[in-house]
Order: sequence, then structure tokens, then C-alpha cells
Amino acid sequence: MATRDMSRWETAICRVVSDGDTEEIIVRGHRMSELIGKLTFAEMMFLMLQGKLPTQPQARTLDALLVASIEHGIAPPSMIARCYASYGTPIQAAMAAGVNAFGDRMGGLGEQMARLLVERLALHAKGSPLSDALLRREAEAIVDEARRAGTRVPGFGIPLHGADPRAPRVLDVARREGTFGDYCRLGMEIEAALARARGGKGVPMNIDGVGAVVALDLGFDWRATRVFLITPRTVSFAAHFLEEQDQDTTWRHLPAGQINYTGREPSS
Amino acid sequence: MATRDMSRWETAICRVVSDGDTEEIIVRGHRMSELIGKLTFAEMMFLMLQGKLPTQPQARTLDALLVASIEHGIAPPSMIARCYASYGTPIQAAMAAGVNAFGDRMGGLGEQMARLLVERLALHAKGSPLSDALLRREAEAIVDEARRAGTRVPGFGIPLHGADPRAPRVLDVARREGTFGDYCRLGMEIEAALARARGGKGVPMNIDGVGAVVALDLGFDWRATRVFLITPRTVSFAAHFLEEQDQDTTWRHLPAGQINYTGREPSS
Amino acid sequence: MATRDMSRWETAICRVVSDGDTEEIIVRGHRMSELIGKLTFAEMMFLMLQGKLPTQPQARTLDALLVASIEHGIAPPSMIARCYASYGTPIQAAMAAGVNAFGDRMGGLGEQMARLLVERLALHAKGSPLSDALLRREAEAIVDEARRAGTRVPGFGIPLHGADPRAPRVLDVARREGTFGDYCRLGMEIEAALARARGGKGVPMNIDGVGAVVALDLGFDWRATRVFLITPRTVSFAAHFLEEQDQDTTWRHLPAGQINYTGREPSS
Amino acid sequence: MATRDMSRWETAICRVVSDGDTEEIIVRGHRMSELIGKLTFAEMMFLMLQGKLPTQPQARTLDALLVASIEHGIAPPSMIARCYASYGTPIQAAMAAGVNAFGDRMGGLGEQMARLLVERLALHAKGSPLSDALLRREAEAIVDEARRAGTRVPGFGIPLHGADPRAPRVLDVARREGTFGDYCRLGMEIEAALARARGGKGVPMNIDGVGAVVALDLGFDWRATRVFLITPRTVSFAAHFLEEQDQDTTWRHLPAGQINYTGREPSS
Repeated sequence: MATRDMSRWETAICRVVSDGDTEEIIVRGHRMSELIGKLTFAEMMFLMLQGKLPTQPQARTLDALLVASIEHGIAPPSMIARCYASYGTPIQAAMAAGVNAFGDRMGGLGEQMARLLVERLALHAKGSPLSDALLRREAEAIVDEARRAGTRVPGFGIPLHGADPRAPRVLDVARREGTFGDYCRLGMEIEAALARARGGKGVPMNIDGVGAVVALDLGFDWRATRVFLITPRTVSFAAHFLEEQDQDTTWRHLPAGQINYTGREPSS
Repeated sequence: MATRDMSRWETAICRVVSDGDTEEIIVRGHRMSELIGKLTFAEMMFLMLQGKLPTQPQARTLDALLVASIEHGIAPPSMIARCYASYGTPIQAAMAAGVNAFGDRMGGLGEQMARLLVERLALHAKGSPLSDALLRREAEAIVDEARRAGTRVPGFGIPLHGADPRAPRVLDVARREGTFGDYCRLGMEIEAALARARGGKGVPMNIDGVGAVVALDLGFDWRATRVFLITPRTVSFAAHFLEEQDQDTTWRHLPAGQINYTGREPSS
Repeated sequence: MATRDMSRWETAICRVVSDGDTEEIIVRGHRMSELIGKLTFAEMMFLMLQGKLPTQPQARTLDALLVASIEHGIAPPSMIARCYASYGTPIQAAMAAGVNAFGDRMGGLGEQMARLLVERLALHAKGSPLSDALLRREAEAIVDEARRAGTRVPGFGIPLHGADPRAPRVLDVARREGTFGDYCRLGMEIEAALARARGGKGVPMNIDGVGAVVALDLGFDWRATRVFLITPRTVSFAAHFLEEQDQDTTWRHLPAGQINYTGREPSS
Repeated sequence: MATRDMSRWETAICRVVSDGDTEEIIVRGHRMSELIGKLTFAEMMFLMLQGKLPTQPQARTLDALLVASIEHGIAPPSMIARCYASYGTPIQAAMAAGVNAFGDRMGGLGEQMARLLVERLALHAKGSPLSDALLRREAEAIVDEARRAGTRVPGFGIPLHGADPRAPRVLDVARREGTFGDYCRLGMEIEAALARARGGKGVPMNIDGVGAVVALDLGFDWRATRVFLITPRTVSFAAHFLEEQDQDTTWRHLPAGQINYTGREPSS
């Protein structure tokens, strides 16, 4: 592989040109100086990742998703950022450790769901809404496949909590704004199919799953799913880091009583 | 130290209560379900970090700052995120490596400036704007101190570029919105004092410096200065990561011709 | 899931007991105070990961593998650690960024190979060396499968370099020490099968591949394969970080001429 | 700053030359192929960081230090690596998060001590051992300065444990091997001065402090102090990551009962 010259870089995202005393920054075909003071962060984020500006309903839906994902208390990954504060790291290290903790079981489930749904719907015509019947069939196929494989459908079910109030609220905003499209509808069909498979007992789409379908209906790449969790959560990392610093804690660790040693003892 | 029980955690940021089948999330005294669909990301970020909602001018100024800091081309730290893509890491690892790269010479200078300015103005009465004369004296003291120490005033001067168009644009927004306060004014006085000290040749406040003074005038803690660079830039990390993945590059490295070995050769 | 109590932790690796004024540290059934001054680092690493002490030939083979993986010039991931130094991060951040860069295309290929080989040989009887004929059949099946899937066998071929002198040297040490077992033999059979499939043109096992088979023959878990690259390379990260700091470079970035903007220009 | 060409890199650590089909790797003036199978990891680490081979007593002392620092149970930073395993990250991400956690209050104290001691002894003649009287005066000055500043001398005292058995054991090895030099002696003098200042009650040099003085007497740069904690501890990160993976835990978090919300409640 790699006959490509690795010292050459190519990008369609941004051009920075220093021309003597002045510099020009073009982002996705727009002058940065014209975007500042005009766009909200959500609009700019949309432009960065999709290369075009969102409609107002799209921007408001994205804001709802970002707001919903910003905070969830002293739980992972913000818990990690607080630990770091107590170990005396700089703030960016704590934020990085929080970001890096978004593994396959934290945030990753939304990405897995997004990928799965994109692959399923890739076979069908684009441009016009898919029929309810088709989405129902796809949903049943997805649920069936998971059941046969003995796995869960990623993005559904809430392992640690009662019903998460964020998920339905974000879907409400998508409905209100008219951005509730094929992927959101497929998500609801999967929810219904899961309930039927379990004799009525619901397994609601969780916030990871809602983030996935809402972002897909906004037009984002499935590979960006995790970003809508990570970027807002960096604010939580910062807030918790600073609060922990204010408390001047030293070296967050487990009480000895919570640890059980099951290994060998020295022979003598 | 540490008689404090490290298994106890305390926070005023967020409360999550699972009550049987439902969960309630309170953020800074607000129900999360009431914030979703109502606040923009910038407003929510303000609430998270300050514990109160911003005014509309404050929110618009924060949006301007976030938009300005989102992208600067294939330069560090986004360059690092692209390298990671070529090494086959997951997206969150690339974003984490970008975040963690905000060291004392990248983003850190804004924080150093914010701290310096807060310490200087801490001595003066709060609540009403400080006089021009007082700010000028402080600015001159800061420039003088740096000159005597043989250092630069952090947040001024643009090592690699011509004049950065982002910095004056963000200040314009602050002026327009009426959020241009004592810290922005002090920044301008330092710029003027630097010009006088150099016989007229300007050393403009750069985007790190502008971020610092604007954030301080919005009421943020100086320790949060870096956050206004890091959080928006995570979007750039994601965009560059995905673009590099699309290009399917393998293992970004330096051309051998750019590396010069100055060490010993084997004796035989 | 998760009826398990997540506040309880269990480990067979280490027990630390503070008993009033003294503390006792037991590692894998040995008193730490008896290991210090007695074991080399490689012996201790073996004990940590396998729960038992190595033989002298095993320890010497592990040392050879660690030495071989410690350094490879200003290339990724050590290049990343140097960049970090120029951005003014602390040393641990630079080391962390180097570690985190070991993605699926850097170091990960050795792990993929190790997993593949373990899965193939899991079907066969353990305890006595496998026959040449059996290993040859397995090697051919592996090569055939990769060919049909249109992929490479991980751990073979050297994308960027000429023949890497480290790989054969580590295998020599394994032969000399008598630790050259079924996995090393299978690796050589794959090399031979690849050569036959290509009409004689060799595709040698690279250092990632050699690391994988040597570590497996030493008894390590395939999931630890990456560790034998990462742990020694942290020394390289430190050495390059300090050298870059001594050079007092500012902000490693790409020359503008190496970047090509392919995006849109502003419409006006 | 930065007229220097940032696309040029210079190093005295390693030269890699690909010459057609073969590659040569020179590390610190030695051919890599001659080092593999000859050096232990500790010897190679010494060569990498100091540019010369250690004596046998130096290598054995370094081994003792690395062994002592490899493991300390389910405590930070290994606790972080276990959390990451439960979040479903790859092993290198968990190792990176462990490394990045070595902040100013974890590992950083040894570096602060090393720097302090190097600055104090920089004023005195090198090459021959310093007199007991001089070291005692320096120790008293250091203790006095800390007392007046209301701070601790970094590297002394063990906040969370009883007497750490590792620290005296590593010093014993240094004594046995004849590598117990001016810095170790100064460390002991500080210990004695602290005891005198407290009316006899000892404040022993902890493992961070011992690591600092032993590494300095081995000839290492004070800026490398943290490396002797980080590099060995990466093995612990891997061991704990794999054990946690085997336990298949889901999402390590705090029990709700350990978290206390002190913030505002919604007004209605």
C-alpha cells in the first residue's frame, strides 16, 4: 500500500492563507469573519460536518440534542474528569480522558445503531419518506436478527436507570420541528417490535439511540454519531473538573473495604 | 491530609434520581426536560459553567467566541486528529488526542492571560466599570513587568500568521452586544501599551487573548478559558478525522528527507 | 444487565493492606519487598501478566522483544510525543498521546494476528508441539482465507520499509532460548505459504507479527499483544519529548505548501 | 519567534535508513540488531534516556525501581484503566488514560522534588561526593523554606498509607549496588531534618521521593522522573484492564448513595 505521498495533505474543510500581514480563513466555502456573530454554535457545527448550513428547524433540533447530552451527573465519563482533578492534572487532560472513555459500551452503542440502520435503509430509494409498512418490516427483521444472535438491539433499553426523560423530549422537538424522518420513524418501529416480541413490555429507545436516529435524520454521517455526545459532554467535564478543584480533594480512590483480593497469598 | 472521606462526592451541578421507572435530571436548578428544545447549546454551556442563564447578548457573544474557535485548517491540534485516523484509532481517541494537545503553548496562553488579568483587577472595586486611567496604568504595569522579565505578555502577538481576522471580529460582536467590559478594555489598553513600548509597531491581541478577555467579561472563571477553545475545536477534530478516514491514508509520517540524525554512528 | 454491584471490585493481581503504621503489598502471591532487587523488569512484567515467574529463557526472550520495540526514530507514534512537547504539554500527556495512537493500523495488526492464530490453534491438542504438517495446513488455510477475502494476513509485509532487521533478530533469540514454539513455527509456515502463493516473492513477518507469535509462545494472552509494543515505546516517547523540549521548538505544524485546499471558495 | 523551519526535525536518538530492501536502525550509536538479545529492558531504557550503557550496578538499581513502581492494587491510576475496560474501550485507550492521570499530585511530586534537589546541588562542585555537612545544611534550608512557605517538601510523607515498604527496599538496593549517591544522601538528610523539625516524629521519604533521588543518582534528567513511574505502571494498566474485561463488568460508576447534591432545586 501507500505509494501515496504522506507528506501531502488535502482538505475541503478549511483554507487558511497568510498573505503578508493578513490572514484569510475560509470554512466550507464561507469566510470565517462573516460567520462570527452570525451563526450559533449548532449552525456552525452543522456546517463543519455537513458542508452546508442547516435550516432553522434543523439547527433547533441539533441544539436540543446537544443540550440533552451535556450533563448526567457524577457518572462516567464526568466522574473520570473529577478523578483527574484530584490527581492534579491540567483541565485539558481531564477533558481528554473523559472524551477517550466513550468506548463501545458508552456512546458507542448509538454509533452501532446508526450504522445498522444506515445499512438497512441503504437498500431503499431515497428522497421520499419510506412507507410505514416497509419500516415495520425492517424493524422486525432487526429485532429478529438480534434475538437469533442472542444480542440486544443497540440504542434500546436503559441498563441503569428508570425511563430517561431526555430521550422522548428530544424526539418531541424533532416532531415539532419537522425533522422527524425515516430514521426516527424506524427507531419507533423497532421500539414497537421489541414490545411485541416481549409480550408488551416496553424497551424504550434510550438517549444514545435517540441521538443516533435524530442525527441521521438531520443528515449526518453515521460515523459522527458519537460526536453529538462527546462535544457537549466536554462542558460537563470542565464543570466537574472545576468543582472538584474547588473542593480541593486529594486523590480519589476506592475505600479499601470495596476491594476484594481473590489471588494467592505468599507461601511463607 | 485527606481525613476527608474520598468515597463521598458532592456536587451542585446535577442531580439524577431514579425513582422506580422514571428518572429526573436536575441541572443547576432546572429540569433537563424543560431545557431541551428551549435553550441553545451556548445558553446551556453558560448555565453549566456559571450556574445561571445568560442574557441574550451574553449568549450571542458566547456563540461568536465558539464559532471563531471551531476551525483553523490542517494545523495542530486538528492535524493530530488526522494522524490518528491514519493509524486506525476510533474517533473518540482522535478527539481526545486533540483535546490533550492544548498545552501551555496552545490555548494555555489565553488561560495565563486570563489569570494575570484577574489577579490584577482583583484589587479594584467591582460592580461599576473601571476608569480608563486605571486600566491604562494596569496595562502599563503588565507590559513593563513582562519587559523586565524578558517575557511576552500572553495573548498578544501572532507567531505564525498575519493578522488573525477572528480576533477583531469577536471583539466587534462583544461591542455590538454590550458585553465589552473591563477585561476587553484592559486588553485593548495592553495592546496600546505594547505599541507605545515598541515605538508604534502594533502587537495585536490574538484569538487566545480575545477569547480570554471576552470570556472574563461574560463572567466565566479564568480557569475555564481553555474550554472555549477546546469544546468547539472537538468538532474540527471530528470533521478532519472523518475526512482523513475517507481518504484512507495509511500511517501519516514524515518524509525521511525532513529528518536529520545528529547522533553517533556505530563505532564499527 | 448489571444486577452486579458496581461498587464492589475484585482482583487477583494485588493486595495492599495498611495495617496501622505499615503496609503490605502482595503481587500475584509474592511480597513486593521480596521482589524488589531480585527480579528484572521483564521478569516482573511476566509475573504481572501471567501470574507466575518466567524461566530464564522466557525472561531473556521477553527482554529481546521489549528492546526491539523500544524505538523506531521520529516516526509515529513518537512523532506525536514530539509535537506535544512543542505545544507545551506535560510529559505524561505526550506519553499518553503516543500510547493512544496505537490503533488498528499501528500495533493493532499484531493483535489481530495473535487472535487469528489462537483461534486456529484452539482446535488442536495442547501440551505437545504440533506437527509440521498440521501447521502447514493451518498456514495455507489462513493464507487462502485472506486471499479469498481480498485482505492481507495481519503481521506480514512491511508497508513503508525495506526488510526490518528487528523481526528476524527477535526470532533468532527465541530459537536460541528454546522459546520458539507452535506460534513461531506457524508464523514461519504462513511466511512460506505467502511466498508460494506469490510465486516465490517473500512477504516477511514484520515486527508486529513477530511480537505476536513470540508473545504467544511465551504464554501471554492474545489481548496483551499490543502491550509489548506500548510499554517499551513509552521510553521512546519520553526520550523524544525531552529532546524536543531541549530544542525549544514552537508549535510543530505543516508547511503551508504541503496542504491543498479542495473545498469551495466563497461565492463573493 | 519561530523563524526556525518547523518542517525540519533533528534527533540524536535514532536513525532509520531504508536502503532498498534492507533497513538499518541505529539507536544512540548502536545497531539495534546487536542490542536485541544482548541488553535487558532496563539497560536499553538507560541507553535511550542517557545515550550510554549503564554499569551492571546501575542496571540492577534501575530494575529495582521499575519493579517497585509496577503495581499498587486497584488504586488510581490503575483504577481508571479498569473503568475504561468496563466502558468498552480498546486496551491502548485505557493505558493512555492511566498514563495521562499522572498529574502534579500523582507522580508529579517526585518530579518537583527532583527539580528542587537538582537546583540546590547545581551550585556545588560535581564529580566527587559532597560532604555530609554540606548536604545537611542544604536539607535544613529546604525544610526551612517549605515550613516558611507553609508547604510540604515534595516526596516525603505518605498521605494514604502506613509506611510504604517499597521505598526503603529500593534504597537498600541502591546501597548494595553502590549507586547511593549525593541525591540519595540528601534525601536521607531531608528526612532527618524533617524529623528534627517535628520533634522526632518521622516523615519518611515516600516511593515518589525515593524514585526521584535514585534516578538522579543514576544520572537521569530530573524531567524524566515521572517516566520511572509511568513506564512500569503501564503493565499494571494492562493487567487490570484484562482482568476487568474477564469479569465483564458494565459501566463502573458510583452508587447513588455516595453522591450528595448540594445545588438548587427547580423553583416549581
